[in-house]
Amino acid sequence: MKEKVYLYDTTLRDGTQGEGVSLSVEDKVKIAVKLDQFGIDFIEGGWPGSNPKDMAFFERMREIPLKHAVVTAFGSTCRPNVAAEEDDNLRALLESGVKAAAIFGKSWDLHVTDALKTTLDENLRMVADSVAFLKSRGLTVLFLAEHFFDGYKHNPVYALRVLEAAEEAGADWIVLCDTNGGSLPHEIFDTVRTVKASVQTPLGIHPHNDGELAVANALAAVQAGAQQVQGTINGIGERCGNVNLVSVIPNLQLKLGYDCVAPEQLKQLTKLSRFVAEIANMAMPNNQPFVGNSAFAHKGGIHVSAVLKDPKTYEHIDPELIGNKRRVLVSELAGQSNLLAKAEELEIDVALDRQEAREIVKRIKEREFQGYQYEGAEASLTLMLLEAAGKLRQLFTLDSFKILMEKTADQSISSEAMVKLHVNGQVVHTAAEGNGPVNALDNALRKALETHFPCLAEMYLTDYKVRVLDESGATAAKVRVLIESARDGEKWSTVGVSTNVIEASWEALADSIRYLLWKEGCEEAERPEQTEARVGIVNH
Amino acid sequence: MKEKVYLYDTTLRDGTQGEGVSLSVEDKVKIAVKLDQFGIDFIEGGWPGSNPKDMAFFERMREIPLKHAVVTAFGSTCRPNVAAEEDDNLRALLESGVKAAAIFGKSWDLHVTDALKTTLDENLRMVADSVAFLKSRGLTVLFLAEHFFDGYKHNPVYALRVLEAAEEAGADWIVLCDTNGGSLPHEIFDTVRTVKASVQTPLGIHPHNDGELAVANALAAVQAGAQQVQGTINGIGERCGNVNLVSVIPNLQLKLGYDCVAPEQLKQLTKLSRFVAEIANMAMPNNQPFVGNSAFAHKGGIHVSAVLKDPKTYEHIDPELIGNKRRVLVSELAGQSNLLAKAEELEIDVALDRQEAREIVKRIKEREFQGYQYEGAEASLTLMLLEAAGKLRQLFTLDSFKILMEKTADQSISSEAMVKLHVNGQVVHTAAEGNGPVNALDNALRKALETHFPCLAEMYLTDYKVRVLDESGATAAKVRVLIESARDGEKWSTVGVSTNVIEASWEALADSIRYLLWKEGCEEAERPEQTEARVGIVNH
Repeated sequence: MKEKVYLYDTTLRDGTQGEGVSLSVEDKVKIAVKLDQFGIDFIEGGWPGSNPKDMAFFERMREIPLKHAVVTAFGSTCRPNVAAEEDDNLRALLESGVKAAAIFGKSWDLHVTDALKTTLDENLRMVADSVAFLKSRGLTVLFLAEHFFDGYKHNPVYALRVLEAAEEAGADWIVLCDTNGGSLPHEIFDTVRTVKASVQTPLGIHPHNDGELAVANALAAVQAGAQQVQGTINGIGERCGNVNLVSVIPNLQLKLGYDCVAPEQLKQLTKLSRFVAEIANMAMPNNQPFVGNSAFAHKGGIHVSAVLKDPKTYEHIDPELIGNKRRVLVSELAGQSNLLAKAEELEIDVALDRQEAREIVKRIKEREFQGYQYEGAEASLTLMLLEAAGKLRQLFTLDSFKILMEKTADQSISSEAMVKLHVNGQVVHTAAEGNGPVNALDNALRKALETHFPCLAEMYLTDYKVRVLDESGATAAKVRVLIESARDGEKWSTVGVSTNVIEASWEALADSIRYLLWKEGCEEAERPEQTEARVGIVNH
Repeated sequence: MKEKVYLYDTTLRDGTQGEGVSLSVEDKVKIAVKLDQFGIDFIEGGWPGSNPKDMAFFERMREIPLKHAVVTAFGSTCRPNVAAEEDDNLRALLESGVKAAAIFGKSWDLHVTDALKTTLDENLRMVADSVAFLKSRGLTVLFLAEHFFDGYKHNPVYALRVLEAAEEAGADWIVLCDTNGGSLPHEIFDTVRTVKASVQTPLGIHPHNDGELAVANALAAVQAGAQQVQGTINGIGERCGNVNLVSVIPNLQLKLGYDCVAPEQLKQLTKLSRFVAEIANMAMPNNQPFVGNSAFAHKGGIHVSAVLKDPKTYEHIDPELIGNKRRVLVSELAGQSNLLAKAEELEIDVALDRQEAREIVKRIKEREFQGYQYEGAEASLTLMLLEAAGKLRQLFTLDSFKILMEKTADQSISSEAMVKLHVNGQVVHTAAEGNGPVNALDNALRKALETHFPCLAEMYLTDYKVRVLDESGATAAKVRVLIESARDGEKWSTVGVSTNVIEASWEALADSIRYLLWKEGCEEAERPEQTEARVGIVNH
């Protein structure tokens, strides 16, 4: 029986403290659902007392059933000289409707006297009262001892008394925070082992990465007896980030033999990492340990031949265990079987022979090399598979488009687009305005097609993301555009790549429309009398 | 007396194995000179036997006197069944003219029999002969035991015999390599300690970062008795990279009390890191430990007030010790004193009264509400402060611009921009093409201004980021554009926000130019005769 280590994700709260990280409520909901599927135990969603966006997240989550994870709200202990039940911050935690709350309190005497400006005894009262109050309302309570390791160095007796206060008040977990992120693994190990000897409550660790040691610090804490690790996906977070759960999990599970998630869930690790990077619009470093594109890429000739003979000669783990892959020439057979599995997953019926499958795998690889990414754009992948299998009718083709953007001397701005399409043998030539060049193009395209395909009227774009691929090229660099569309609650994503942001957007827009037309059949489009009847309506 | 840990840099050899890393001979020379100034002990320049570029580097370095560092060449032991003095690879090492050589040999039995296809005894002969041969020619010899930690796990007796063979042959250093990068800190510690007990030769450690544990592994090895760390600047290298010396050095020196470089040299650490990133044309992550832009950036309101009272409350080291600086993030600017602290940090001399400061804070908050973000765009913030203080001359103003983007029936794409500006009382009206609308606008803007402000010719854009702010609006949503520009190694960032990606880009582009003009003075721009003289030159 393997020992369990609990995973506590704070991407949605501490992660958003990272410079340049900003997540909408819907982004947070999407990430929470994926974290749950992956097997995370606690999902910290925000600080309900601090802002309305975080409160809105907890409201949304009440409607969404999770399989496994406990949605957790973050807050602090009550203020000095305020009773816990009178404290707005603690009340906001209750109002958020969560079943678990994580509250931080001071454990470094310097912070109590100098930052909080209260007495050491009053701080103990605040910790105890706050924990007891939340426990009395039926919550699972995690007490986060802020700056614990620095505090323990300066005044071990007081730091331990703070933990004892939380324990006596009934805390379910005591989490030791390396808030400044500067502790070393041997310090973490020794301190956790000492704490373990005097505290019965299960311990957690909350490391930051200021010394580039956060992953090692998490492992050291677990080896010394901690049973929970708090971190973020891809290590996002304030300053140098929180500990990167994406690296902690495979180290714990594959190397140290702890139980974190099921093996099938672990295979989703690479996808989870890339999904969060995509939603947060953060460039993933290729050399990211475990899940990076280069993590199992073999360059040197000696390495390649050895790794093909025996992967363990140059690979520390089997990349498949975490859903990543080796990037030596992938065997074509493996490519083909993967492809058919993917087609099945996408619920498309393609009968491909060996040669066709080889061709598609080759095409996908070429396009990925150009910068396309199909993990976040499965509708575009579906279209490519259908096309290769000869199952996609060309319902429209582009003849040309023009976009004119103007900022005049009076500083007013306008954007217009003209499109010329071939639809069912007819030429459709129309124009529209928009509040930007891509929006104008989008509007013109729909205007041209809605007449023929009424189902497009109910489709709308829900997300539009631009990522610069080769940053050294700056405004001349390649960009990848990801578009998410929705109709009737169903959503799909498409991708376009070009050095020209408009061209990349056009590709993704066209794919999103083609996907819907394939999915819905859109048969009414072929009756010319209906087409004519509708022309008048939409020609506004 | 502090114990010395020797620094061995392999940025120029193992670093260039990283995906996308490519350094010219001159790049390598520049980096070597900086590494020497910084206090690196060994600079591994390349593998003379493997390619002519590496040989050319060693030739160049013979002309360049270094103050401290020993230029070192990399190679392997002789081939099976070939005498060391007959081996081309070892001869190339001698021909390179270096005083020190690092040769790798197998220490994992599996690699000897399966990859090298020879006997365990022959491998010992190869190690001993190769070391003895190079020693007999007067070189300092470092023996690199490839895959030592994996080998030691599988066959500790043989792994140790390999080290003994190198020691008996006279190796000056024995370096233990975690070639696959998957070892854990406690394994490294235990193994190095065991080796230390049976080998008298000084030990080094060569970790890779596949488990996100390389820095911890380097520290563990030193704590167990290793006296040399081999790594790269910024951790570049194959797969997930080599260990990052930029993080190893301050951990060893500031936290563990070892002696690596002089304190004045340590203050150059941030510059060194950024210099190498610049030469290697790699984007530095803002959250890079110790030297990143965000490494000492404080966002949360509680943190800011505490850190201003006492930096050690939220900083693990004093950033000045490594040449980095504290940044108070603007979003938390709450009042006049913070604003003035910021102005001082930005090195701008503004004398604001209480009322003016209030106005600026209000303006910043309004613009942040609109979607501007000044955390990543301090040049735009600087301009705003200067403007408010009446210290910014308007050197140019926009009259109008037009952009035409066209995709024709033959599917070719073009982007053109026209701009009309007022510069020094003149109207400049010009046009340019680009490989996208923003690039065309950028080109037209520079073309219009370079005549008047020649310093713009040396400025270039290094990064361009687009973030959609309100995703529900999709292509009609607001976007934020962040642009990073550089000149002479100095970088600055600017921001623009609009529902129109082109307009937002224009704002950021214009700010980046205005910032440089302010910073540089650009006085020659005001002499009309010079302006006229240059018109002919640039009007291409």
